[in-house]
Amino acid sequence: MENIVKFDERPDLRDPVFIEGLPGVGNVGKIAADHLAEKLNAKRFASVYSKHFPPQVTLDHECVAHLASNGLYYVKDAGKNDLIFLLGDFQGMTAEGQFELAEEFVTLAISMNVSKVFTLGGYGIGNVVEDPRVLGAVSSASMKPELERHGVTFVPGEPSAGIAGASGLILGMAQVRGIDAACLMGETSGYFIDHKSSAVLLKVLMNILDVDIDTKELDERSQQMDEFTSKIKEIAEGQQKDQLGYFG
Amino acid sequence: MENIVKFDERPDLRDPVFIEGLPGVGNVGKIAADHLAEKLNAKRFASVYSKHFPPQVTLDHECVAHLASNGLYYVKDAGKNDLIFLLGDFQGMTAEGQFELAEEFVTLAISMNVSKVFTLGGYGIGNVVEDPRVLGAVSSASMKPELERHGVTFVPGEPSAGIAGASGLILGMAQVRGIDAACLMGETSGYFIDHKSSAVLLKVLMNILDVDIDTKELDERSQQMDEFTSKIKEIAEGQQKDQLGYFG
Amino acid sequence: MENIVKFDERPDLRDPVFIEGLPGVGNVGKIAADHLAEKLNAKRFASVYSKHFPPQVTLDHECVAHLASNGLYYVKDAGKNDLIFLLGDFQGMTAEGQFELAEEFVTLAISMNVSKVFTLGGYGIGNVVEDPRVLGAVSSASMKPELERHGVTFVPGEPSAGIAGASGLILGMAQVRGIDAACLMGETSGYFIDHKSSAVLLKVLMNILDVDIDTKELDERSQQMDEFTSKIKEIAEGQQKDQLGYFG
Amino acid sequence: MENIVKFDERPDLRDPVFIEGLPGVGNVGKIAADHLAEKLNAKRFASVYSKHFPPQVTLDHECVAHLASNGLYYVKDAGKNDLIFLLGDFQGMTAEGQFELAEEFVTLAISMNVSKVFTLGGYGIGNVVEDPRVLGAVSSASMKPELERHGVTFVPGEPSAGIAGASGLILGMAQVRGIDAACLMGETSGYFIDHKSSAVLLKVLMNILDVDIDTKELDERSQQMDEFTSKIKEIAEGQQKDQLGYFG
Repeated sequence: MENIVKFDERPDLRDPVFIEGLPGVGNVGKIAADHLAEKLNAKRFASVYSKHFPPQVTLDHECVAHLASNGLYYVKDAGKNDLIFLLGDFQGMTAEGQFELAEEFVTLAISMNVSKVFTLGGYGIGNVVEDPRVLGAVSSASMKPELERHGVTFVPGEPSAGIAGASGLILGMAQVRGIDAACLMGETSGYFIDHKSSAVLLKVLMNILDVDIDTKELDERSQQMDEFTSKIKEIAEGQQKDQLGYFG
Repeated sequence: MENIVKFDERPDLRDPVFIEGLPGVGNVGKIAADHLAEKLNAKRFASVYSKHFPPQVTLDHECVAHLASNGLYYVKDAGKNDLIFLLGDFQGMTAEGQFELAEEFVTLAISMNVSKVFTLGGYGIGNVVEDPRVLGAVSSASMKPELERHGVTFVPGEPSAGIAGASGLILGMAQVRGIDAACLMGETSGYFIDHKSSAVLLKVLMNILDVDIDTKELDERSQQMDEFTSKIKEIAEGQQKDQLGYFG
Repeated sequence: MENIVKFDERPDLRDPVFIEGLPGVGNVGKIAADHLAEKLNAKRFASVYSKHFPPQVTLDHECVAHLASNGLYYVKDAGKNDLIFLLGDFQGMTAEGQFELAEEFVTLAISMNVSKVFTLGGYGIGNVVEDPRVLGAVSSASMKPELERHGVTFVPGEPSAGIAGASGLILGMAQVRGIDAACLMGETSGYFIDHKSSAVLLKVLMNILDVDIDTKELDERSQQMDEFTSKIKEIAEGQQKDQLGYFG
Repeated sequence: MENIVKFDERPDLRDPVFIEGLPGVGNVGKIAADHLAEKLNAKRFASVYSKHFPPQVTLDHECVAHLASNGLYYVKDAGKNDLIFLLGDFQGMTAEGQFELAEEFVTLAISMNVSKVFTLGGYGIGNVVEDPRVLGAVSSASMKPELERHGVTFVPGEPSAGIAGASGLILGMAQVRGIDAACLMGETSGYFIDHKSSAVLLKVLMNILDVDIDTKELDERSQQMDEFTSKIKEIAEGQQKDQLGYFG
């Protein structure tokens, strides 16, 4: 086996858009995708098992075992397009595994006639971001004007290190196979799970997809993060003053 | 080659139950399975060779070489069901190898129309266990009442780290392929080969399978372990008292 | 997937010669091949994607993503033969990956009826080289006289450590498949990107292929390197004199 | 590619015996096999290339490149049987690679109707051996009497660590595929290339195969080793005496 794809249902979707939200930098992409899928009552229709995931089962509160997997979910009639979500707790554990899985997902997307692919991620910049932007990378320059209108920023050549992992590979593989694709990245420090960056990313994505959901929970967690960040900053500044006084 | 499966015989079994007992934490599962298979005169009918086992042969007392393998054994008319045992000294050496082998075993089990799969293991808790319980994880919650009646304990979400290796993967793979499966785990410290935990696990398994064998040898080794553990404890307590005296 | 080969065009080439210039020691081969391909306006006609490349996309100044790849380029009517270039920023990341890719490239070369293969590389000798030679290794001894006439030096048994990576494997694989092939290696220290060694290598290659291009840029960078090297040498010698004076 | 097998010739052999002599402990097996093949003018008829060998070419004194390979050689009418030799400078670099190659070789052996397989190796015992024995391991106990008659010693359960690498795997794989096979191991310290152990191993093999060759060179090197070993011993004993005197 490379991968096993198990379908619970074969949904009939209208011009679907494919949205990847697997774990990554600050879990920015995962949190946004999970939140959107949950609020839209996305329904799991397929599971992907792979020898490239960790060799283990996890247990739920019922002691029922679950082989490591990624899940595919769908939503009908939410916005301009039907939606397919790729969600889960794992990425491939090796470079080769990541390629095998990205190819699997893009092949699945093609078999379901997706018209566009969005991969969601975080862009780690190494320090706390007060007003995170959403940076974009695209399979073709022609996609940029529309994304810019919906709040995506394009910084020439950024991220300069490229995009690694599922978000990068699914974008690249979709491009090779001739499907329009973009990676949307919320700016984040890269040091912790970043709900604020996720909230910003989610709102841009909602704009693009023309869907409307309640983001209150995410907004509240964003605000908590802001308060926490301010407090840290005050303490840091207080310490600096003390030190100046000490030497003054 | 991924794996080579070599059949010596194709037994005709009635509603067989598949029991995995490969090496693992404290060898709790292996010892219980080996003991049960031996006492029931289980007969080896197939060998599985794999590039995921160590690249070597071992020699017996006759200097006859044996390529690293796992063996399949059967027992007819022992209890409610005929039995198939998966036994051996090796697990796959890599994550991918463990997946390939688990898939091989579950495919074999399906081809033999097994009705249920039990994987046996140890649950390492990091300290000496006086009265080890047998914890369970299942492919479906509906299996729990019967297992509980036979002495299996279900602790919500435990083992919290999930179940790694052959016991976990065969359970998970069986579930994916639609076969009822459970992992039974004897509690153990995880620091040594634990015959006592094996004896407890074996008795629960005998209850479930409705088979009866002589467990005297295993019980004697359990008792030796108890005596050894008590002695260690006495010494440890003696030292503590001495130390109190010293400071007293 | 092992590799994906995507053709933009299927050029009709006359007796083509295949030239490999992937990254390697001092990037000597890559710089020479990139320079020649650019000056001859070589046209990209195919891309090779592989799970053996790093799992990532890079972004250009337009924020367009590019999956890690090697590219095939062609030039018609440049010299005695049409030319095919294999260029890129990556080699396979593992030993197995390097074999898979070398086999892919040689199979592609054969499918395009190449008459000869040249792989370009650097030969790291561990100290600064004032007048780098171009060493050769061949698939068959009968190729040597012509290459020697064009400036290639053959030193019996050198490089004594053999030739690793794409340059070595493509040469070896071509030989196994019955195609004349040679590896041309510019001598270099092995400690930095060496434009001077590339310029020497390029001129030998131009002789062999009977093509003529402007090498001014590369010559200028060679001269800069010479000046830099002389300066380093003067400083080193000055220090030595000082030390002698100190002890004198 | 896993492996590429390239035939220069398809020899028509009478009841051939297959002899493996790849590098290993003390190179005991390789030296014996190389020597026998050379003296019998064995002719190379096939080359095995593999992605499991190091990714490189080596160069001969003519600067001709050679992709890492193992070679198959044959000898007709040398003794009771025609002979096939497996010789070379490499074994597979990973556990999986060793399995893939062993399977390739045994499949080749079967396709050429070999009646028996001998794998040659060294048995490292950790100290200098004055009179090395030749230990044996077999695919079936019925092979032992004849081998014992020709000078092979069987020590129950030895080597206790089993036999790793090509010699072990080809033996084990031949057994699985139903071919009589034995591994013959010259005792050796394991610390250096051991021509003496090779000479002893070679003579036992010559007995078994009923072939006669000139072993003068190997005998001379054995004698040199004996003299060297004696000298080392004298020095060591001298030192011991001195030390005793010192403390006396």
